[in-house]
Amino acid sequence: MTSTAPIAVPAQPPVGAFDGGAVFVEGRYAPLSEGKISLFDWGFTRSDATYDVASAHNGAFFRLADHIERFFASLAELRLAIPYDREQLRQILHGCVRAGGLKDAYVAMVCTRGVPPRGARDPRLAQNRFYAYALPYVWIAPPDKQRSGIDLHISQRRRIAPESVDPRVKNYHWIDLVQSMFDAYDRGHDTSCVVDAAGHVTEGPGFNVFMVKDGVVRTADSGVLEGISRRTAIELCARLGIALRIEPLPAAAVRAADEVFITSTGGGILPIARIDGAPLPRFPGPITQRLHDAYWAMREEPAYRDPVDYR
Amino acid sequence: MTSTAPIAVPAQPPVGAFDGGAVFVEGRYAPLSEGKISLFDWGFTRSDATYDVASAHNGAFFRLADHIERFFASLAELRLAIPYDREQLRQILHGCVRAGGLKDAYVAMVCTRGVPPRGARDPRLAQNRFYAYALPYVWIAPPDKQRSGIDLHISQRRRIAPESVDPRVKNYHWIDLVQSMFDAYDRGHDTSCVVDAAGHVTEGPGFNVFMVKDGVVRTADSGVLEGISRRTAIELCARLGIALRIEPLPAAAVRAADEVFITSTGGGILPIARIDGAPLPRFPGPITQRLHDAYWAMREEPAYRDPVDYR
Repeated sequence: MTSTAPIAVPAQPPVGAFDGGAVFVEGRYAPLSEGKISLFDWGFTRSDATYDVASAHNGAFFRLADHIERFFASLAELRLAIPYDREQLRQILHGCVRAGGLKDAYVAMVCTRGVPPRGARDPRLAQNRFYAYALPYVWIAPPDKQRSGIDLHISQRRRIAPESVDPRVKNYHWIDLVQSMFDAYDRGHDTSCVVDAAGHVTEGPGFNVFMVKDGVVRTADSGVLEGISRRTAIELCARLGIALRIEPLPAAAVRAADEVFITSTGGGILPIARIDGAPLPRFPGPITQRLHDAYWAMREEPAYRDPVDYR
Repeated sequence: MTSTAPIAVPAQPPVGAFDGGAVFVEGRYAPLSEGKISLFDWGFTRSDATYDVASAHNGAFFRLADHIERFFASLAELRLAIPYDREQLRQILHGCVRAGGLKDAYVAMVCTRGVPPRGARDPRLAQNRFYAYALPYVWIAPPDKQRSGIDLHISQRRRIAPESVDPRVKNYHWIDLVQSMFDAYDRGHDTSCVVDAAGHVTEGPGFNVFMVKDGVVRTADSGVLEGISRRTAIELCARLGIALRIEPLPAAAVRAADEVFITSTGGGILPIARIDGAPLPRFPGPITQRLHDAYWAMREEPAYRDPVDYR
């Protein structure tokens, strides 16, 4: 059933009730160890699910409303529904961070198809399930690696095409991305990105890719998740008067870039030092550095901050 | 860690210990209600998993060794490993059917990447997880629908391409297939299949598609799961002297077929009555009927039967 009337959310849990991280499952807060789903949930057996990930730093969410809006858009496209409205969802996510006693947190919201009645195969008959959790913040690359320089592998594996799975709907169809990570690790690189049928760079496991050449920033126009951090980088280019083009990124152009950076909720804007082992001319590049600094300043702007109440 | 030394399997559980169905999780048999995986397992959050499904009828598995062989091939391709060898896996699957007290069963084996250490993103560091379960047999279409005639929708949705995810590795990347089921149900049809970039029919949610025209059987050559039931149908064509071509299936050719049938562990060989509401000339067609009957006879052949011990 994809339409469900809102139900009440539980009261905010005590601060640190589940120290180190908390889940919200079956309508209640619980320790991470209770974060489980049924083996029979189509969210697992068909990856028939969507999710979103927000982050908190220094006790405040960043652009949480945007993450929630995207999550609701993803739900609608997959014909999934949760029994909470946007404000209730916001409260639940705050509750997970609060219960975990976390100041810096990785915060996920997930909706799965659920389990259709025994013997039925009609997804419309399943009661959709909602999960949320807050974990200690996870960097997409460890801080020491960020300093020494991330080496990005451009895999020849092809990202699942938009004609099959709409990448703007955040989804767990990641076998292509995970296999590209094996490729990267096998070759001694740090992370990976994959290409589309035309050989253009699309995205990596959990991040968008940007390049800078002759002062112009470029990122892929299609076939990628429209990341909130990607959007932030795009908006910051406008604010800072940096030229930006949203267009396909041939792999050869990325290899010949002056600077490359990735954007992710798990790190904001992070410079890339090497592509397949070959150093880029500038690391960290001056434009990447400006955007990086502007990103962290923007996180402090009241319009984008949503502070957690730890009282 | 993808290589793991075999460990002992528990003794066969009592018959009917978990009446109606049983799971095997964390190295032991348990009731279906304990069939859960972690929300943090990459098998869920990245659909980084493979599986296989065998069936038992009248107390015996069919081609179980073939399912196990394919499962091990899938594991190798995704660089996953289970701590059991083929014979141990066979014992576990038998144990699930036995514990469930089932004569007719849907029997799944699943391996997930597992959860990498906190903060790590390297899939090589995760301890892979193994799950198995036996449920009462699930028909891919209910028996009354099989008799009245299945109406197959040819969706314009595109199956995830082999260049992204190898369809021969049985996987849970099914958003395209599930969305095509919505398309079918919305239009009043019973099930669906999807196409490739060239518009050729590939497969449906859990089944391969065959057509018959002028006495010649045809099924897709690529971009599909190489189903064990598909293989059985192919072998039965040879046995029965029925002409067979393994080649692309244009949607128009399927619509113009004399007969269409689908193959699945969830039903063997099942005739299709209508394509997008348009009746096929023959339902059930004579060649489909011969293959259907030969399929069920083959299930009784000792070479393919693996009887469960219910003593």
